[in-house]
Amino acid sequence: MSISSIRLFVPGPLAAPLDVALSEPQSHYLANVMRAAEGDTLRIFDGLTGEWQAAVTKISRKAVVIQVRECLRPQAAEPDCWLCFALLKRAKTDMAVEKATELGVSVIQPIITARTNADHVNLDRLRSIAIEAAEQCERLVVPEVRAPLPVDKLMAAWPAGRALFVADERRTSALLSTQSGPSALMVGPEGGFTGTELEAIARSPQVTRVSLGSRILRAETAAIAGLTLMLAAQP
Amino acid sequence: MSISSIRLFVPGPLAAPLDVALSEPQSHYLANVMRAAEGDTLRIFDGLTGEWQAAVTKISRKAVVIQVRECLRPQAAEPDCWLCFALLKRAKTDMAVEKATELGVSVIQPIITARTNADHVNLDRLRSIAIEAAEQCERLVVPEVRAPLPVDKLMAAWPAGRALFVADERRTSALLSTQSGPSALMVGPEGGFTGTELEAIARSPQVTRVSLGSRILRAETAAIAGLTLMLAAQP
Repeated sequence: MSISSIRLFVPGPLAAPLDVALSEPQSHYLANVMRAAEGDTLRIFDGLTGEWQAAVTKISRKAVVIQVRECLRPQAAEPDCWLCFALLKRAKTDMAVEKATELGVSVIQPIITARTNADHVNLDRLRSIAIEAAEQCERLVVPEVRAPLPVDKLMAAWPAGRALFVADERRTSALLSTQSGPSALMVGPEGGFTGTELEAIARSPQVTRVSLGSRILRAETAAIAGLTLMLAAQP
Repeated sequence: MSISSIRLFVPGPLAAPLDVALSEPQSHYLANVMRAAEGDTLRIFDGLTGEWQAAVTKISRKAVVIQVRECLRPQAAEPDCWLCFALLKRAKTDMAVEKATELGVSVIQPIITARTNADHVNLDRLRSIAIEAAEQCERLVVPEVRAPLPVDKLMAAWPAGRALFVADERRTSALLSTQSGPSALMVGPEGGFTGTELEAIARSPQVTRVSLGSRILRAETAAIAGLTLMLAAQP
């Protein structure tokens, strides 16, 4: 891998010819792992202004400084689709965050339910996973990873204009991929939602309970498959 | 987890009231991990005759013996869809096999390409992963995991009646999920197929190169997303 194929997320707003001191892990990666030299160019993006070419201008023990050069791709609209999923074991939560980012979600909202085994999560770690996935998959946006919320609290404040598709293996109506406005996919815990939770969810008029096919999917697979169906047809 | 919720794959053909000695790992799991007792019932399937209830009839140091009782679900047709994917690093290959099994593929065919990093794979391990995924996701069939083949050899012997969809991020025609006959999804290596390989693939009249959406997906995500689109609408 060459320096020019590196793509890093950098907090913005970016503009040319701004000088930017990279974070410690990014500086370490560029200077020590990739052995970048002054003058090398790479790509950066900030989720606000788009993707830019930047050049390494200073390498010190403390930080690598880059200068923003040319805008390669201006910021563009991305689908406004949330993933709300009951927290899973660590490796599966990591997988859900990484794959949801690749597939194009805008917000990742972990939820806590009666049958959720995990109730704690390292948000910084999940945000790092989302950043790394966005860097690698050429997205212009890093999805926002929100703090876990109990499902009833999330539903009590559900936004009026956002369609919510809840994966439900007992349903037969297929998840349609024609959704174009704000939307969300919700995936419950391995043991399913409780009756009380389903009532809280069903109270929202934006909710549609949908099938993801005739096979039983693990929760993280349901998240990936559901997002695929919702997002594949979107620009 | 109780014994009655256990579901095991057992080589068939099964019939009632056959006595079956379980394999060593299965016997160990039932006797020592789950502490099954004589008389406990569980579910078994063989991929040939369907899913059966069985009862533990003998627990010895060597093996657990079960007796096949009642047929719970007769064997039914499943989609005839192959996954052909360029071998990935171990964890990603494992993920592709597990998720492809959940999503309902019939055959998993690893392929070797010029830009494939791996050329060796532990087939027994991949088969165990497919069996475990089939056990957990209630499928009646365990997909066949085939030995890796160079992509040109696979294409030279491509079956006449099997439609092949090749994931290609440069294409804009979306993968359609209306396929009902024998089909296959092919996913190339991270670096893409070479020109020579693409020629060998394009020579087959059954090939359609398709997009999986506007975002760049890692290879294992492309496999999962592509199979979702192909299989979600199938019974």
